[in-house]
Amino acid sequence: MYKLILLRHGESVWNSENRFTGWMDVDLSPKGEKEAEMAGTLLKRYNILYDLCYTSFLKRAIKTQFIVAEKVDRLWIPVVKSWRLNERHYGALQGLNKKETALEYGDEQVKTWRRSFDVRPPQISLEDPRFPGFDPRYAQLDTAILPQGESLEDTVARVLPYWQVEIAPQIAERKTVLIAAHGNSLRALIMHLEELSPEKIIGVEIPTGTPLIYELDKQLKPVTHYYLE
Amino acid sequence: MYKLILLRHGESVWNSENRFTGWMDVDLSPKGEKEAEMAGTLLKRYNILYDLCYTSFLKRAIKTQFIVAEKVDRLWIPVVKSWRLNERHYGALQGLNKKETALEYGDEQVKTWRRSFDVRPPQISLEDPRFPGFDPRYAQLDTAILPQGESLEDTVARVLPYWQVEIAPQIAERKTVLIAAHGNSLRALIMHLEELSPEKIIGVEIPTGTPLIYELDKQLKPVTHYYLE
Repeated sequence: MYKLILLRHGESVWNSENRFTGWMDVDLSPKGEKEAEMAGTLLKRYNILYDLCYTSFLKRAIKTQFIVAEKVDRLWIPVVKSWRLNERHYGALQGLNKKETALEYGDEQVKTWRRSFDVRPPQISLEDPRFPGFDPRYAQLDTAILPQGESLEDTVARVLPYWQVEIAPQIAERKTVLIAAHGNSLRALIMHLEELSPEKIIGVEIPTGTPLIYELDKQLKPVTHYYLE
Repeated sequence: MYKLILLRHGESVWNSENRFTGWMDVDLSPKGEKEAEMAGTLLKRYNILYDLCYTSFLKRAIKTQFIVAEKVDRLWIPVVKSWRLNERHYGALQGLNKKETALEYGDEQVKTWRRSFDVRPPQISLEDPRFPGFDPRYAQLDTAILPQGESLEDTVARVLPYWQVEIAPQIAERKTVLIAAHGNSLRALIMHLEELSPEKIIGVEIPTGTPLIYELDKQLKPVTHYYLE
């Protein structure tokens, strides 16, 4: 049996303020740190050890991973960071309070942006300080592939090649992999693993800081999955 | 100019208890955590940014690196861990209090082990629970290369190939590299960089948690070096 652990980062400061975060590099809240500790405690309790960890370029995921690794006493495990596991880029909505956004754009429009598969949020320009090209962590990347505001479909499109090329081959080598990432980059993986339709994946909510275990067959198709609690 | 930052981990719990630590995976003391924070504060103050980090398989170095990365807000920087940057393996002395060791083996013998370049400590057997082959983090490695107790010369012999093959080429590509490691693995690097004799390197003491900056020429020979304070 092949094993994969998906873990959404603990609550961030902006989750608790109900703001669109996306690629903004917001820290864990104290509650989020506790959630990460609990995730580590659960992995330890069920003795689910991992051999390799993937995470995003965003500190709320990187710190969640670190807190877990410390809890399970596996800080020495290799950790690979990739922008492809980042949260969905929320374009011009990033930084806005969700209520304010509803006032400015209307409730229905905001619901559409949050609940549709292929509708993009308002795009930021290439001159917007929120454009990732201004951030040194993305300096190595071709600006043409950096997002200005993604639909969930866009997020899926940049997460999946990373799964195919980087992560899946490691699992196929019998490594148990932990992916510490974000609500929408994890949705992209779940959509692929479970072959869900756009309508179905939109309805999937992943709780923060709760390890989601997938047991996979040789073709890396899910045999079963469950949250640890 | 090419730049390299060497950083010895902050004080560990066993440093403060004056015990031989070596490859024992001992945590930072509260003072050690503060030292790591200070190292981050200094790098930030002098605006010395690094692009890539190397550390050992031991948590006191890995945590030092993490605390620094958080302080300079560069958690997204790639971190590569290698057993080759581990502390000198202290063989059968590992875990012993330095006073107890002196009582058992005599002051002169202990001084010889600590102050000589090529004298090995008493070796552990392959059945000793302290033999690294029993630790999952070294499971991928051929047991024949795992140490049973190293002289500083042995440490140099396993650190240098890693410098040559992995680290130096990255610096040559103009990346500023941070190496968060240990007293003796850093001595190995300094011995090589400064072309020091065995007698000279034995006398070099590297303070914990204090960034040591090397500026290097094209051949990666040191032009100048200084501690941040």
